[in-house]
Amino acid sequence: MTATRFFSDNAATVHPAVMEALAAANRVDTAYDGDKLSQSLDAAFSSLFDTACEILWVPTGTAANSIILAHFVRPWQAVLCHEEAHIVVDECGAPAFYSGGAALMTLPGPGAKIDAEALKARLAGIRKDVHQIQPAAISITNATEYGLVWRPDEIGVIAEIARGAGLRLHMDGARFANAVASLGCAPADVTWRAGVDALSFGFTKNGAMTAEAMVFFGGSGGAGVRELKKRGGHLLSKGRFVAAQIRAMLTDDLWLANARAANAGAQALAAACGTRLMHAVEANELFVRLTAVEAASLRAQGFDFYDWGEGAARLVVSWDQDAAAVAPLAAALAAL
Amino acid sequence: MTATRFFSDNAATVHPAVMEALAAANRVDTAYDGDKLSQSLDAAFSSLFDTACEILWVPTGTAANSIILAHFVRPWQAVLCHEEAHIVVDECGAPAFYSGGAALMTLPGPGAKIDAEALKARLAGIRKDVHQIQPAAISITNATEYGLVWRPDEIGVIAEIARGAGLRLHMDGARFANAVASLGCAPADVTWRAGVDALSFGFTKNGAMTAEAMVFFGGSGGAGVRELKKRGGHLLSKGRFVAAQIRAMLTDDLWLANARAANAGAQALAAACGTRLMHAVEANELFVRLTAVEAASLRAQGFDFYDWGEGAARLVVSWDQDAAAVAPLAAALAAL
Amino acid sequence: MTATRFFSDNAATVHPAVMEALAAANRVDTAYDGDKLSQSLDAAFSSLFDTACEILWVPTGTAANSIILAHFVRPWQAVLCHEEAHIVVDECGAPAFYSGGAALMTLPGPGAKIDAEALKARLAGIRKDVHQIQPAAISITNATEYGLVWRPDEIGVIAEIARGAGLRLHMDGARFANAVASLGCAPADVTWRAGVDALSFGFTKNGAMTAEAMVFFGGSGGAGVRELKKRGGHLLSKGRFVAAQIRAMLTDDLWLANARAANAGAQALAAACGTRLMHAVEANELFVRLTAVEAASLRAQGFDFYDWGEGAARLVVSWDQDAAAVAPLAAALAAL
Amino acid sequence: MTATRFFSDNAATVHPAVMEALAAANRVDTAYDGDKLSQSLDAAFSSLFDTACEILWVPTGTAANSIILAHFVRPWQAVLCHEEAHIVVDECGAPAFYSGGAALMTLPGPGAKIDAEALKARLAGIRKDVHQIQPAAISITNATEYGLVWRPDEIGVIAEIARGAGLRLHMDGARFANAVASLGCAPADVTWRAGVDALSFGFTKNGAMTAEAMVFFGGSGGAGVRELKKRGGHLLSKGRFVAAQIRAMLTDDLWLANARAANAGAQALAAACGTRLMHAVEANELFVRLTAVEAASLRAQGFDFYDWGEGAARLVVSWDQDAAAVAPLAAALAAL
Repeated sequence: MTATRFFSDNAATVHPAVMEALAAANRVDTAYDGDKLSQSLDAAFSSLFDTACEILWVPTGTAANSIILAHFVRPWQAVLCHEEAHIVVDECGAPAFYSGGAALMTLPGPGAKIDAEALKARLAGIRKDVHQIQPAAISITNATEYGLVWRPDEIGVIAEIARGAGLRLHMDGARFANAVASLGCAPADVTWRAGVDALSFGFTKNGAMTAEAMVFFGGSGGAGVRELKKRGGHLLSKGRFVAAQIRAMLTDDLWLANARAANAGAQALAAACGTRLMHAVEANELFVRLTAVEAASLRAQGFDFYDWGEGAARLVVSWDQDAAAVAPLAAALAAL
Repeated sequence: MTATRFFSDNAATVHPAVMEALAAANRVDTAYDGDKLSQSLDAAFSSLFDTACEILWVPTGTAANSIILAHFVRPWQAVLCHEEAHIVVDECGAPAFYSGGAALMTLPGPGAKIDAEALKARLAGIRKDVHQIQPAAISITNATEYGLVWRPDEIGVIAEIARGAGLRLHMDGARFANAVASLGCAPADVTWRAGVDALSFGFTKNGAMTAEAMVFFGGSGGAGVRELKKRGGHLLSKGRFVAAQIRAMLTDDLWLANARAANAGAQALAAACGTRLMHAVEANELFVRLTAVEAASLRAQGFDFYDWGEGAARLVVSWDQDAAAVAPLAAALAAL
Repeated sequence: MTATRFFSDNAATVHPAVMEALAAANRVDTAYDGDKLSQSLDAAFSSLFDTACEILWVPTGTAANSIILAHFVRPWQAVLCHEEAHIVVDECGAPAFYSGGAALMTLPGPGAKIDAEALKARLAGIRKDVHQIQPAAISITNATEYGLVWRPDEIGVIAEIARGAGLRLHMDGARFANAVASLGCAPADVTWRAGVDALSFGFTKNGAMTAEAMVFFGGSGGAGVRELKKRGGHLLSKGRFVAAQIRAMLTDDLWLANARAANAGAQALAAACGTRLMHAVEANELFVRLTAVEAASLRAQGFDFYDWGEGAARLVVSWDQDAAAVAPLAAALAAL
Repeated sequence: MTATRFFSDNAATVHPAVMEALAAANRVDTAYDGDKLSQSLDAAFSSLFDTACEILWVPTGTAANSIILAHFVRPWQAVLCHEEAHIVVDECGAPAFYSGGAALMTLPGPGAKIDAEALKARLAGIRKDVHQIQPAAISITNATEYGLVWRPDEIGVIAEIARGAGLRLHMDGARFANAVASLGCAPADVTWRAGVDALSFGFTKNGAMTAEAMVFFGGSGGAGVRELKKRGGHLLSKGRFVAAQIRAMLTDDLWLANARAANAGAQALAAACGTRLMHAVEANELFVRLTAVEAASLRAQGFDFYDWGEGAARLVVSWDQDAAAVAPLAAALAAL
């Protein structure tokens, strides 16, 4: 069935090493996030990112994004983000819920990357008075909602604008692993070294069961983030089972290996798509032109994927689908 | 180590059958709560409770309580509850967060059971005008925060008051299994048959990893509860792994067997405590008088538990601690 | 000084009849909105609008808009509105505050009128699932933020879309009087007869001191609106002084006479502006092309107005500035 | 009719000097709080309180209390206050609304004064962990809801506890003028010199139309309070009319003269009440034992007042009721 599931990496299986880590964590330890595994995460991420990090885990990317953003903005402020960002389009308003009503100010840009000029113009157009909502943070997604990867220099441009305007920079990294695998750089290079203040580091799509890390580079910088997590109902009593997943994903860079596998599968599909591609394939998602008849034909062959507006479809390759596993779909696409 | 851990059932291990269910769920299915396991829960609970139920799962009791209550009250209304209820004392204000600022109106009563007369007096004292917050729900906890069990007739008294005042009745069942095991009645008898509208049915303390069910008897009665879950970041992409835990707990009444084991362990401890007991032991918690010297002596022997104010301690027996497992502590208590 | 103040009708004087009504209200009556004047408003507006109305007064348009919209949408829903609407641009997020985090979904359209086709496309693009925010209301402004007037037939088009999608239709009528004066129609024609469910009827800009009416056609349709007003701190203890202003504005159609005066002044200016006009002048606002040198010249002559981006300015005529009072500015504009 | 109205000072008339100030303010000035009158308030209060003050005006005490408290606490924190405080009992949850869900932790104490020992015990009982709501402010009311007056030394005791626990101290001064008039001290003595951080200084009950000042001693200490005011819909476009009322009340200490008149009236009534009095009469409110028959008798004579539970009533004297004006009621009480 992995050879037919292309609707989302959301539904992928859990990596055996994660399952083993869950079994290993099934012993007595203390509750909530006081356990040894949870307590080890700050050091583990600090090592991975080559700088002091403060970590909190939550079960979903929606929670990670919302809690970080609510920590960065007050209710009367705003987050600047792309108009097709997941936080705008697919979280049922969770950032507004967690922040107590902060606004999302949306910006255009190709491939769901914020256009830097549009960002500057938007900032310039906001009067500095109490009538207008003032932004306090920018959120970018890496890889983007269209599978494009922000490079360190591109992030640096946004970060410089953010710094100049006194804004915090958040990265939604639901597919951060895929972005890093694509870039071949150090995780630090696309985050704090490029000016990112906090990262939602997603593991669930990439082989974990339900585990996302909120990574604050240099610390979360103030009270509140733990209270937000608790009030959201995200302080699990047996938290060690989330921490265990994350530790397993970090061990021997499993996160990177899984992302590479998914990216490789996407490249194999991309080769078969040719001019159907609507965006460059830089991570594990493909957006392809597909007529209704073609889509029906693929579905008749068992392939499962989402339509993306009229005449287009989204194909997502998961960590458990390497180039071999995507071969049938590649063949079917080539044969259309 | 299970022979020394008495600070909370929060930190208990996960039952092997639940671990097996997680492994079995590690195959391709659709995302969120569209999978077969999640979709099977309405029927499973409807069968268990002998009435049509609508079910949503979340990972924590705090989320379950808050979402149900936020579904029952509007921001300008209130929930009536005991002054020592978990929702008041231990959830960092999560019900106010989810409900958009609804109030908790607290009531006294022995053993953390709401006193019915105090409830009636409180309701009578509220002017029906726009200046005063109007209650819209009552929340009771079964078993209570002091390990007492609400009997069907006692619940009926509260439910009748609720009905008379147009209030919904919620039961925080973080230890619902222990209450039912203690009463020996049908789950329906202490819930909807007694007038309960919705139940937070806890599995995490009782052998699951992270799984709580929101059970709406006769349906949730209106839009919003799924949106609240989503906005809270509790719609897991691999939701089948929570549903799998719940199904495992329901299979062959594992929930009941586990609760009986914990209750039996508590009874064994209770026998050793004699006149130290501050409350009747009806579920799996004991509150005992213990001097600082005695507490230190027990801790020196390796036993781990919480102080409960001065001169008192709380002992909690978990599902993985049967009478045999609690024998060392029972002996130590008897020897004090 | 009225001959130089063109920056906003916000700062206009209070009509003598309103001042007299305040003096007349300065006698003993009961508190809050239980007084005779407040209690008379439902009937007064029902008569004016030729249908049963439910009225609440508040001191600001921001409060009126926010409370109506918060009454129409739940926190997880959205209001569709123009991207330059006052509720988006100039209320510091008050609608999100009152609604508990509901979103504003913005739409384009010339002259700050929502484009009906864009509205339809936006609605069609929203998946009916829990991940995406679902709209529950549409808000239009009459006269618009660019001084254009929605005609009954134009409103009808929006209302039909609203009805088809199950949305409530709100009209921000901060300058409703100017719109009605411009159209020469009955107030009913541009409100409930055209499909509007509730109106923020502004009096403050039009001769009152601080008085806005929330007008619910056919009733507010559910509990909550009074609680929202009270929680917002808008239930004044001496509410009769707001109601008195509104009654004075309704008496002998003072609201209409004042609006006609302002509109006439705007027409006199418009004639002097010629091709400088960026939008048709249909109410009491003008948007004109003006170089920095020209703007400086006018300001040197004492005229006070806002720049509106580069090379443009906004001129607003108030009720206390008739054609004669605007003559100096008209002459200065013509002389540029 | 002033001789019969004793249900609340809420409904009192507006002092002629305030009406004159409104008339005088009816000229062109800029909008919102940029006008000369609003801008003069910081200096006026700084002079009155003999220290640097930052002032914002709002139309209601509910708004003043809620905005100050929301400025002092974050959503996950709490305000400690008396269980019969106006913010608990009579504001429909406005503090929770403005603060985004902060809790009110209630304390007992005679005459609606917080008992200092109960306060200390409550603070000592709160675990410093993320599960329990942490208080961030204390609110006291002067004069209290039972007409008692906090003396500087009593406030100092509370303030010292507040300082020790890192809490801000707020004073609800809906009847602050009556308290100061009663004490005969400087306004500074019962506020910042005693440790108060911010005061809701009420003018509406004491001769204004609709005007309350939020007084921050030493400044509001951080961004947000103006945004809260704006988001609440309390930034009036013609704000000069609120500022004018406040300036009139401060001129020649009208606030003090009015309060003295009301207090004197209350003393005259108190003399007539004798042993009926349930609390000392220190400001302008009386709480008296009154049978249903006696209450009916007074009402039959035209006197208007509130029952206060069974067998008791509240009598409030307003600024426009001096000793002479209360003579008929005094006589009627004496004749019972």
